[in-house]
Parts: sequence; structure tokens; C-alpha cells
Amino acid sequence: MIRRLAVVGVGLLGGSVAKAARARGLAREVIGIGRDVTRLQAAVDDGALDRATIDLADGLRDADFVLLAAPVRTIEALLDRMWKDLAPDAIVTDVGSSKGAIVHKADALARATPRTFVGSHPMAGSEKAGYAVARADLFQGALVVVTPTETSEPRAVKTVTAFWEHLGARVMELDPDAHDTAVAAVSHLPHLVACALVDAVAREMPGALPVAARGFRDTTRIAAGDPQMWQEIFLANRASLRDAVAAFRRALDELERVIAAGDPAAVEAALARIKAAREALS
Amino acid sequence: MIRRLAVVGVGLLGGSVAKAARARGLAREVIGIGRDVTRLQAAVDDGALDRATIDLADGLRDADFVLLAAPVRTIEALLDRMWKDLAPDAIVTDVGSSKGAIVHKADALARATPRTFVGSHPMAGSEKAGYAVARADLFQGALVVVTPTETSEPRAVKTVTAFWEHLGARVMELDPDAHDTAVAAVSHLPHLVACALVDAVAREMPGALPVAARGFRDTTRIAAGDPQMWQEIFLANRASLRDAVAAFRRALDELERVIAAGDPAAVEAALARIKAAREALS
Repeated sequence: MIRRLAVVGVGLLGGSVAKAARARGLAREVIGIGRDVTRLQAAVDDGALDRATIDLADGLRDADFVLLAAPVRTIEALLDRMWKDLAPDAIVTDVGSSKGAIVHKADALARATPRTFVGSHPMAGSEKAGYAVARADLFQGALVVVTPTETSEPRAVKTVTAFWEHLGARVMELDPDAHDTAVAAVSHLPHLVACALVDAVAREMPGALPVAARGFRDTTRIAAGDPQMWQEIFLANRASLRDAVAAFRRALDELERVIAAGDPAAVEAALARIKAAREALS
Repeated sequence: MIRRLAVVGVGLLGGSVAKAARARGLAREVIGIGRDVTRLQAAVDDGALDRATIDLADGLRDADFVLLAAPVRTIEALLDRMWKDLAPDAIVTDVGSSKGAIVHKADALARATPRTFVGSHPMAGSEKAGYAVARADLFQGALVVVTPTETSEPRAVKTVTAFWEHLGARVMELDPDAHDTAVAAVSHLPHLVACALVDAVAREMPGALPVAARGFRDTTRIAAGDPQMWQEIFLANRASLRDAVAAFRRALDELERVIAAGDPAAVEAALARIKAAREALS
């Protein structure tokens, strides 16, 4: 049971955590911290927050559990700004989609002033953003990757894990850098590819758009994601992303080569291998 | 009102046409033609077909409307085999995902023996195949591209258009080659890209698969499509596909360049442009 939960950033993810914590009685008190008090008011009116503030130090006072729910670069900046305001017993986690830079920043801050941070990445985002689309059941059945390091306190890792599990999520532990490599492959690469698909068709082949059916819509849905959030992800994780794009290019090159060669059996064999890999996923 | 509708190939599309035609009273009699009489039996048992046969000439006898529902290369071969068996007043259409080769083949056959063919492409496929997933409402609200040429009889184009509209579809007319360029961009390219994504991750980064969330699943859902069907599409439409892939590579190159340059404002501007294009779609 959390005494005072502080949620910094009350959008889709932060708002959903507030709603879910309230619905499941996980915290005695939920404080929302944001930049715009009128936007925060909706969450207070809903009963998801007990109180909202735009003053970070005020919102963090006496909080024993702090969730940073902002774009990745903003989370890094927040850690710098808030570290000295954290209660010594507070446990801090976040929702950032890339973890290396955030976790290393927290480790560096902790060497000067010991405070407890364990990174999280709830894989429950959407192309929609903002408190208006927050839902108490957003984490139900979702995967949350928790990224401890060798300096993490086992008790804090357990608390963060239990936090997400109480909200209905499945938790997987990964080293922060292994996490970044993995999400580069299955999240950031598909996002970049979906963006390139939309851009290629919209700019070079716009006449084809009226013919776009479900396949195109599904494949490119994520390209409508929040530009600021994705800009920060792409830049924060650009080394792993570059490697993932290189692997993608090798796969695309090979498929193009097989198609150009024109051998139906070879094309079909490649597609059968891919179908089997895709079906193993679901 | 169709007197005798012959459906060649009773899978997802052919089976759905049979069910929809029956549900809407569009044909007095529906004959199914396939390669395996035991598989056809399910559609007879359902009442979607009045009769099933593996004998093409027998199935086509006295049919005034013929639907070819097979992979694209198979449709070309079927046109050769069946042309002489068609009733002189029959109107023939198909469901092939690329149209140039099919329509040009029918035009060539019609110069020797006048029969009436108008190409169709119902954009209502799925990664699932077979009669078991056929549905009477598959075409409800779906887009069907009809591809007449300058030699098409206006009466036949009208009949084929009315046929799909009666099944609930919206019909758009396109020249066969314009169709192939458009679907290369919004259907065949996304399919190839989804296949390359799955292949890259499965072969080079399999450790990332347990982290795959909804974004990856949606983006790659179509990669589980039928290998034979897609092999035929990729090979039949490979010239247009090559151009579409080249446009995609240009867009991907540019996005990678902007990310590598590391300017947040430039990355965000590119993503905002793409988000606007994607949102204009739905």
C-alpha cells in the first residue's frame, strides 16, 4: 500500500496509472504534477487525483512512490530537477520507452545523493495521447519491462514489480541496455518503418491513398503517434535503432533479390518462413 | 438478377461471394468449382452453393456470371483453360490483387473468341484464408476496384459494378495499370515491409520477440498472409512493386539522415508531417 503516490505527467500513461491505482485502492493519496493546472483539473474532477499541482517540489513532498510519466528526454531532465526534492524513502520509477540514458542518469545522481530509482517501460502506449484517453484498465494484461541494474536495491525492484502487477500488468526484468536493443527491434524500428511507409506514399504516390485498405491502415497506425514523444525516443535510442534498421535493410534487400530473381518456389519459401515466424508470435 | 453464378475457387473471397449472393438473393443458382470436392462440400452443406464440381467446363455451363477467385497467376491460367467453355453471354470477373497481366490476357483471348471480362479487385482480404473464414458480410463497406479498359463493354462494366454494390461494397474504377501502381504502394509494399520486419527480428534479433507489443503485432499482422497468394502477387506486380520499394527506401533514408543529424526540431517536424498525412487517411 502506497501512502502518497506522485504522478509527474498526467497524460495517457500517468493518467491511467492514477485511475488504476484509485480503482484498485493501491494508494491512500494520489497527487498529480503537470505543467498546466487547468489540464490537471480534469483528473481531479474525475476523482483520479486527490490534488494537482504545477510545483514539482510541492507535489513530491512526502511521496513514497513517484512515477515519472513524460517523454524520455523530459524524464532525464526531471531526474536532475527533482532529485534533491525526493523524500529519502521514496521509490521512483518511470514509463520511458528507452531506458539506458534514464537509468544511467539516475545511477549518477544516486552516487551523490542516495535515492532509489528503478526504471520501467509499460508497453501499453497508443497513437493517441493525453489524459482524455487514459483508462483504469490500460495495463491489464500489458507487458511492463522493469530494468534494474547491479546497484538496484532488491526491495525497490520488488516494490516496483508489485506496483505494476497490482495494476494488472505482466512484468519482465531486463538490463537497461538489453531493453533498449529489444525495443529498438520490436517497437522503434516498426515505428520508423511505418513512418517511412506513410511518408513515401503521401509524398511520392498520393494517388494511391484512396485505395488504401485495412492492411495499410494497420501497418501504419502507429505513424500517427505523438511527434515529440517519438522524436525523443528516436534520438535517445538512436544507436540501437541504427543497428535494427540495418538488420531490416538486410532482410528487405534479400526479399527484393528473391523477388527480382523471379523463382516462385524461392519467393514462396521465404514467405512461408516469415509466416511461421509471425504466427509463433501470437 | 443472375441466373447461374459460377464461383471458381471457394476460399475466403469466393466463399464470401457465394454466401453474400445467397444472403442477398443475387443469383438464382450458385455453382462452386474447385480442385477438391470434399472441401467444396462444406459450402454445399451450408447452403452457400447449390452444387459443387471439380470439372471446370461442367461448372461453367450456362453460367451468366462467373467469378474467378484464385491467386493471380492461377487466374491467368484459368482464363486460358476456360475461355472456350464460357457461354457467349457470360460476364466474367475476378478478385486478383494485381490486374495488368490478367486484364491483358483476357483482352488477348477476346480478340480470338469474343467473351466478356471485366477485372475486379475486392480489397477485403485477410491474413486468414479458406472457406472456413468466409463471411456473407465480408464486402460490406469494403472497397472494390473495377478495372475496365477501352475495349470493355459499358453494359458489362455496369453489371460487374452492380454485382459488387449489391454485396455491400463501394466500387471505384481504375485503369488496370493505374490500379497496379496504386496497390503496389498501399498494399504490396506494406506487405513486403511487414515481411522484412518479421524476418529481420526473427532471424537477427529473436531475443526481442518476447517484448513485442501491440505496435509490432499490428504492423506485422499481414506478414502471416498466405505464402502462395503473396508470391503470385509479388511476381505478377514486381515492376510496380520495385518502384514503390524505391520510394520507400528514399523516405527511410531521409528519416535516418534526420535522426543521425540529431536535431530534435527537425526530427519532430518530420514526424508531425507524417502524423498529419496518416491522420488524413482515416
